[in-house]
Amino acid sequence: MKPPKEKNMIFGLRAVIEAIDAGKELDKIFLRRDVGGELARELFEKIKSTNIPVQKVPLEKLNRFTTKNHQGAIAFLSSIEYQHIDNIIPTLYEEGRNPFIVILDGVTDVRNFGAIARTCECAGVHAIVVPSRGGAMVNADAVKTSAGALHTIPVCREMNLKNTVQFLQSSGIKVVAASEKAQHSYTKVDFTEPVALVMGAEDVGVSPEILRICDDIVSIPIVGNIESLNVSVASAIMIYEVLRQRNL
Amino acid sequence: MKPPKEKNMIFGLRAVIEAIDAGKELDKIFLRRDVGGELARELFEKIKSTNIPVQKVPLEKLNRFTTKNHQGAIAFLSSIEYQHIDNIIPTLYEEGRNPFIVILDGVTDVRNFGAIARTCECAGVHAIVVPSRGGAMVNADAVKTSAGALHTIPVCREMNLKNTVQFLQSSGIKVVAASEKAQHSYTKVDFTEPVALVMGAEDVGVSPEILRICDDIVSIPIVGNIESLNVSVASAIMIYEVLRQRNL
Repeated sequence: MKPPKEKNMIFGLRAVIEAIDAGKELDKIFLRRDVGGELARELFEKIKSTNIPVQKVPLEKLNRFTTKNHQGAIAFLSSIEYQHIDNIIPTLYEEGRNPFIVILDGVTDVRNFGAIARTCECAGVHAIVVPSRGGAMVNADAVKTSAGALHTIPVCREMNLKNTVQFLQSSGIKVVAASEKAQHSYTKVDFTEPVALVMGAEDVGVSPEILRICDDIVSIPIVGNIESLNVSVASAIMIYEVLRQRNL
Repeated sequence: MKPPKEKNMIFGLRAVIEAIDAGKELDKIFLRRDVGGELARELFEKIKSTNIPVQKVPLEKLNRFTTKNHQGAIAFLSSIEYQHIDNIIPTLYEEGRNPFIVILDGVTDVRNFGAIARTCECAGVHAIVVPSRGGAMVNADAVKTSAGALHTIPVCREMNLKNTVQFLQSSGIKVVAASEKAQHSYTKVDFTEPVALVMGAEDVGVSPEILRICDDIVSIPIVGNIESLNVSVASAIMIYEVLRQRNL
């Protein structure tokens, strides 16, 4: 990983607390493994009310990010403003649109994430949903690979993807996951109704607890010897099948 | 560009001549702009009988590749063995297969090239055709991005893509180019017969002289505000539409 630029970081317990209070979009907070004291306790309380991912790390890791006095706390500013899926869906229905959502369950590669965002924007996908933990950092590299799409398309960071899937289902949206183990092809599913596609992590695919509750699981046929398509390519193939079926 | 590793290079006029004689696969030859003498003349003659791209460069550029005594000539070994499209097509027909070729007209980005090769291999594309000049270097990065596909799928390097297109057409293959300016969608074309898809350069697209002789020109619909899809994503969408129509 390229070391992030200092201007995208916030250092120090008090500064991180103030950033949360000010509603700044934070991608991640790193805390020294054994950080303690009253300010640290205050920060822990604050973080609980948010869905910002926190990682406890050894002091050496923090020191690699900066030589400044970080007091055991460094937060990374996000390159984008996150939105909420429960605000987006009702608006789509009010505007008479046919919802089309893409959920990324653990896509951690920044370039893949950016590439998928670019395709989603081109295809008119209404929102991308990512988990608070285990998603790609939405950094400058992601924005660049997205060709700027990440400044346009809504990205929703959700605490619990399972809850999000159930919320979408209760909103009349069919949730279809891609998995190499699926029995039938993505072209056999009706995508003309409201739909959310779930694409999985580069290595392990969609997590079992999400697969269990999805309305359908589909695969993309592989004719050759390489076992799988790149996740950004697989996403594009599925996304454009939705457009084809909708005659867009 | 990352400097290439010395083990993938051949230095010196005599050594490059010998590499050509030995039938080594060379991606490119760099010559000092003002290289002269008998050996240089011999090398020029040799190169004429091959389709290896040559670039004349200032001495400083050669010196950046190596500190060894290169005598004004450096050749880059290809990571793969090229094949010939005029050998492949008859074999496909003999084996009762429905030819499916992908032509890359000026895709120069190594990662895009690798990504397209990966998708082609997964989709069972029979061969990738690239031009001798103006294509991506088939180096270790390309092979890595292709997930090894470049070791499996035939890649044909052709001197003159226009001649190749005409050869394919005379062999009963419909040649369909992707262009943002096309009037009709890629989903409206019949891909069940023998087909070659032409994908263009990242910036300027398929060259006008190729567009003029193609049997059809199609576009992929763009609903959003970003003007174009990444070329590896666009290739994947077109390639999998062929598979869908062929019920694979």
